[in-house]
Amino acid sequence: MSEKKPHIVIIGAGFGGIKAAKLLANENVDVTLIDRNNYHLFQPLLYQVSTSILAIDEIAYPTRAFFRKHNNVRFMLAHVQGFDAVNKEVITPYKRVKYDYLILAAGSTTNYFGMNNLAYSTYGMKTLREAIHIRNHVLHMFERAERESDPEVRKRMLTFVCVGGGPTGVEEAGSLSELVYHVMKDEYHGLNIKEDVSIVLIEATDKVLPMMPPDLRDETVRVLRSKKVDVRLNTQVVDCDENTLTLKDGTTIATNTVIWAAGVKAVPVISKFGAEVDRAGRVIVDKTLQVPNYPGVFAIGDCAHLEQDGRPLATIAPVATQGAVVCVKNIKNLINGQGTMEEFTYHDVGSMATIGRGEAVMSKGSWKMKGFFAWCAWMVVHLMRLAGTHTNVTVAMKWTWNLLSGIRLGRIITNIPDNRE
Amino acid sequence: MSEKKPHIVIIGAGFGGIKAAKLLANENVDVTLIDRNNYHLFQPLLYQVSTSILAIDEIAYPTRAFFRKHNNVRFMLAHVQGFDAVNKEVITPYKRVKYDYLILAAGSTTNYFGMNNLAYSTYGMKTLREAIHIRNHVLHMFERAERESDPEVRKRMLTFVCVGGGPTGVEEAGSLSELVYHVMKDEYHGLNIKEDVSIVLIEATDKVLPMMPPDLRDETVRVLRSKKVDVRLNTQVVDCDENTLTLKDGTTIATNTVIWAAGVKAVPVISKFGAEVDRAGRVIVDKTLQVPNYPGVFAIGDCAHLEQDGRPLATIAPVATQGAVVCVKNIKNLINGQGTMEEFTYHDVGSMATIGRGEAVMSKGSWKMKGFFAWCAWMVVHLMRLAGTHTNVTVAMKWTWNLLSGIRLGRIITNIPDNRE
Repeated sequence: MSEKKPHIVIIGAGFGGIKAAKLLANENVDVTLIDRNNYHLFQPLLYQVSTSILAIDEIAYPTRAFFRKHNNVRFMLAHVQGFDAVNKEVITPYKRVKYDYLILAAGSTTNYFGMNNLAYSTYGMKTLREAIHIRNHVLHMFERAERESDPEVRKRMLTFVCVGGGPTGVEEAGSLSELVYHVMKDEYHGLNIKEDVSIVLIEATDKVLPMMPPDLRDETVRVLRSKKVDVRLNTQVVDCDENTLTLKDGTTIATNTVIWAAGVKAVPVISKFGAEVDRAGRVIVDKTLQVPNYPGVFAIGDCAHLEQDGRPLATIAPVATQGAVVCVKNIKNLINGQGTMEEFTYHDVGSMATIGRGEAVMSKGSWKMKGFFAWCAWMVVHLMRLAGTHTNVTVAMKWTWNLLSGIRLGRIITNIPDNRE
Repeated sequence: MSEKKPHIVIIGAGFGGIKAAKLLANENVDVTLIDRNNYHLFQPLLYQVSTSILAIDEIAYPTRAFFRKHNNVRFMLAHVQGFDAVNKEVITPYKRVKYDYLILAAGSTTNYFGMNNLAYSTYGMKTLREAIHIRNHVLHMFERAERESDPEVRKRMLTFVCVGGGPTGVEEAGSLSELVYHVMKDEYHGLNIKEDVSIVLIEATDKVLPMMPPDLRDETVRVLRSKKVDVRLNTQVVDCDENTLTLKDGTTIATNTVIWAAGVKAVPVISKFGAEVDRAGRVIVDKTLQVPNYPGVFAIGDCAHLEQDGRPLATIAPVATQGAVVCVKNIKNLINGQGTMEEFTYHDVGSMATIGRGEAVMSKGSWKMKGFFAWCAWMVVHLMRLAGTHTNVTVAMKWTWNLLSGIRLGRIITNIPDNRE
């Protein structure tokens, strides 16, 4: 009787899924990695694609390229439709994939908290396509504004609102400001950029970057305001249509561009597994990262809910990758029939955010840093984590170039239809 | 009475239009440059985007970035709809643009010679969007083939046909071969790449690269065949549907991918000007590059027809840029009221084509070169012509990297819809 290798199915090729697959690639197991895209996306730099700094290929890495030398890792491009937990199967449009062990690492998507008008009228920024949409749209707004004669319409076209004072909102607003005031100002000879453009950052609570100490939060607001970003704290968005954003106090902002970075939830397919989920759709796992009542099924990263020190762990890459390590150890323990299972404890690696070229804030425990050296550290950390030596070099060059000259060559509108007629 | 500066309108931001606008930027004139895209496209390298070597931003350069310091050059993103030659106006969806002098430099598009089935079922490769379509489609074919159980369907999915033995067809076929046999073969563990993939290059006449001397043409066919490209000369395509390409002798090729690089014609809007055009829709110009009967209207590049040594000039970049120089001189002569007009003579700069990494052919007059040094020369010439120092450096790196390791990081499928459900 030939021995069949255990088959581990991983849903999602994000930070957690790729880490788990890499760890399992050298084991005596078969791995099927399923993702709806053919690339691993470096989500923390999405805002740089949306603001024309980096190219698509620099933050997206072909998933199969990680596993060239590992015949036991199979990739499958598929949108998972559901699960058959009784028969241990993942349901895809093409076939049912049987598993012995399952790792749910499908990540998160934008959370509109049930406000459908916002979902239809604003731009999310969780996927590569969304970042490209934002880029195309913002560039288009400048083109349209330049040929617009009505000053009110022009101002509306050139009002850009980011909602959400977390790292994504802060980084997007800071980067947009530099795109506008360093690059666009020299290229739209028919626009009065200083008069006509507004960039607004809206945050519902009284603080941006909640994971940072108070003085760095103040510094962030100060730097953003020095970049002409209109930072509005304690401000809640209640409605939005094509031309108007409405705030809770009844005031409105005339704008055609609202970028929604105010919340995330687990991707919807996770709830189809059938296990208990929290309000954001995350699977509740035990300390070994297993899903209770489903032996051999694990969840990690943004789609898993585990509390530590009384709070759910944050939806950030280090939680996912550290989770992948423990999850793989526990799967090996189960395969080897060892009774002991490791419990997961997240080790804080600190947090950081860029506010612009040469400006960043970072903190870890009581240690903190800001300004140019924090930005250098941010750059090094992100370069180290990007996939592919080649990418590291080109991205390092682009960032240096952008720092020195403010140049942004990604300003290519890709969604204008060809016209053959 | 304040003196109004002469207004020159340029249609098209290709090689000819950009060159003309740059030359006019330092003159005492107003320039409006109109293009349907916001970028200048380096068309000779489109095949490298379609085969995942280069990123979009590396061959597309934001048109406005050329004219940062020139307030007298205005860019307008618009699809020209027609002309009013009597009132000297260009008609766009937004407004009519009045001109004193007009330069038609709108370029060319794919020519299907009236065969509509081919237009619907094949991929053109003249625009950035078309190159991205090809890239997305080819990558998808591999993903679909790997999960396909029917061997006939799988082979059809993995049969890639390029029609047209000019530089585009030759370069595309050579580059596809390397993508498949150097990159894909290590990443699709479920496919038998050598068995299942076919790459076919079809040419209607008895030769590829007609502008090259016979021995270089033979060398090109030899190198392509050594790369497993099935080169078929004297072969004519007559029909195509989603799954089948039909040849004139009745044989068929089962394929889902036909790239049509067998002909070009002027973009359709050119014929709307009203002047005499040739069979390919090109405006017939006199030796001063003026359109007969339309004083002050010039045509250059792919959309102009001028004979030299008894043959129409080729649709290549050097003809367009050299034409732009003469055209601008003649416009200045007209502005200054000088009677003498310069006649255009194209000075051959030679021709070159890459067949793959480290393999190229080039010739100029009786001088010729092939192999690795020709490839190096090809690389230097193309780098020199690419817009932007920064781009030069990243592209040079990518080519070197690709030469040494065969890596291609552009394999990102960008057209899979996000799913929020």
